[in-house]
Amino acid sequence: MERRPGATFRWKGEYTHQLNEAHTLDTQLNVFETFRPQIPEAYREPDVLFLGNIHPELQLDVLQKVKRPSLVACDTMNFWINGQRDALWKVLEKVDVLIINDGEARALGQDSNLVKVAKLVLSRGPKHLIIKRGEYGVLMFNEKQVFGAPAFPLEDVRDPTGAGDTFAGGFLGYLAATGNRSPEAMKQAIIFGSVMASFTVESFSLDRLRILDYKEVQDRFREFKRLTQFEDIR
Amino acid sequence: MERRPGATFRWKGEYTHQLNEAHTLDTQLNVFETFRPQIPEAYREPDVLFLGNIHPELQLDVLQKVKRPSLVACDTMNFWINGQRDALWKVLEKVDVLIINDGEARALGQDSNLVKVAKLVLSRGPKHLIIKRGEYGVLMFNEKQVFGAPAFPLEDVRDPTGAGDTFAGGFLGYLAATGNRSPEAMKQAIIFGSVMASFTVESFSLDRLRILDYKEVQDRFREFKRLTQFEDIR
Repeated sequence: MERRPGATFRWKGEYTHQLNEAHTLDTQLNVFETFRPQIPEAYREPDVLFLGNIHPELQLDVLQKVKRPSLVACDTMNFWINGQRDALWKVLEKVDVLIINDGEARALGQDSNLVKVAKLVLSRGPKHLIIKRGEYGVLMFNEKQVFGAPAFPLEDVRDPTGAGDTFAGGFLGYLAATGNRSPEAMKQAIIFGSVMASFTVESFSLDRLRILDYKEVQDRFREFKRLTQFEDIR
Repeated sequence: MERRPGATFRWKGEYTHQLNEAHTLDTQLNVFETFRPQIPEAYREPDVLFLGNIHPELQLDVLQKVKRPSLVACDTMNFWINGQRDALWKVLEKVDVLIINDGEARALGQDSNLVKVAKLVLSRGPKHLIIKRGEYGVLMFNEKQVFGAPAFPLEDVRDPTGAGDTFAGGFLGYLAATGNRSPEAMKQAIIFGSVMASFTVESFSLDRLRILDYKEVQDRFREFKRLTQFEDIR
């Protein structure tokens, strides 16, 4: 499996059978080693900004070239966490939402306990830490709440590549579309992102998303409610 | 870490840092090799019966010695799944609820996809398959529903030993106490078991359960609701 954000660099690795962990075999930066992002005029006032998984200094460079968005989210990976830790913390100071997987969270926080990792990360800038756990779902930590959801159980998982990016897209798309940043909206956005990711993995690449309509998204959102909701006890 | 059901046999192994998987280093059956359970008269008409993790033939023997309970649940482990598969399937024909971890489920169903494993297991006897995933929570499959919950995020996990047994105890205890077997009660029982397990791991052995009161259980159940519940979208 290869991960190619913008097809500009190449990550070669493999997923375990549980799909919550991707094992990196090799990372080749290629053109990213000398790349400087150019931001077209039309993109310099984003309302919501997602800093994709690139060198932290480039993420910072992008942030400095745009008018401050109302929400900034950020992805990264072990390659930067281990190799560019200081630069990464500088980015995180300016980020509202950090979206990473559980292995990356443990590496960043240098602790196996995710609650402790969350406390550290939230003290260093981000208001929300979202931890993707593949087939095991997702956890969100912020000052007011901890929220968790399982992944949608699927009988056919064809291609986990891009599930994390689709999650981030669905999460941020929901917040951008509603303009709502309440604790309740943050939870809905988490489920919305999980729904989108559950569609992505059903087919190769973006094939499933290409033919997806909003009714299907709403239906699966409701299935997610049935999957997770329960009544109080006495 | 050692697992000693009834202190009669010894499982020696270790948990990974993620605590959802225990690696078996060695299993010594000891007195279990020749053990035949004697059921005292007072225990021969249980309403709810939990067949602990012993040789499938002994589980069958226990089942035959009691009046048919209204609910029979069963645990097992890879040692029996791999070594006593036929005997185990014979037990499962008579079992209502199978409670195992995800590695065991994959070994039993001989498939990495848990939805496919659930379909197979539900076609062979059990009405409910409950898959424990350690820090990642739990999934329940039955004919009418799929239900999933994350584990309660804890800052201090002292001792994961016994978390699975505590989960089973809480789950079955809730069903036994309420007498309710509705789909909603099954979900509440899953959360009740998760709540109990979350207390167990906070201290060594049974230390936390010894001082636990029902108010604390109710409070954490409500925290579980806050952790997992969300509103529908338009």
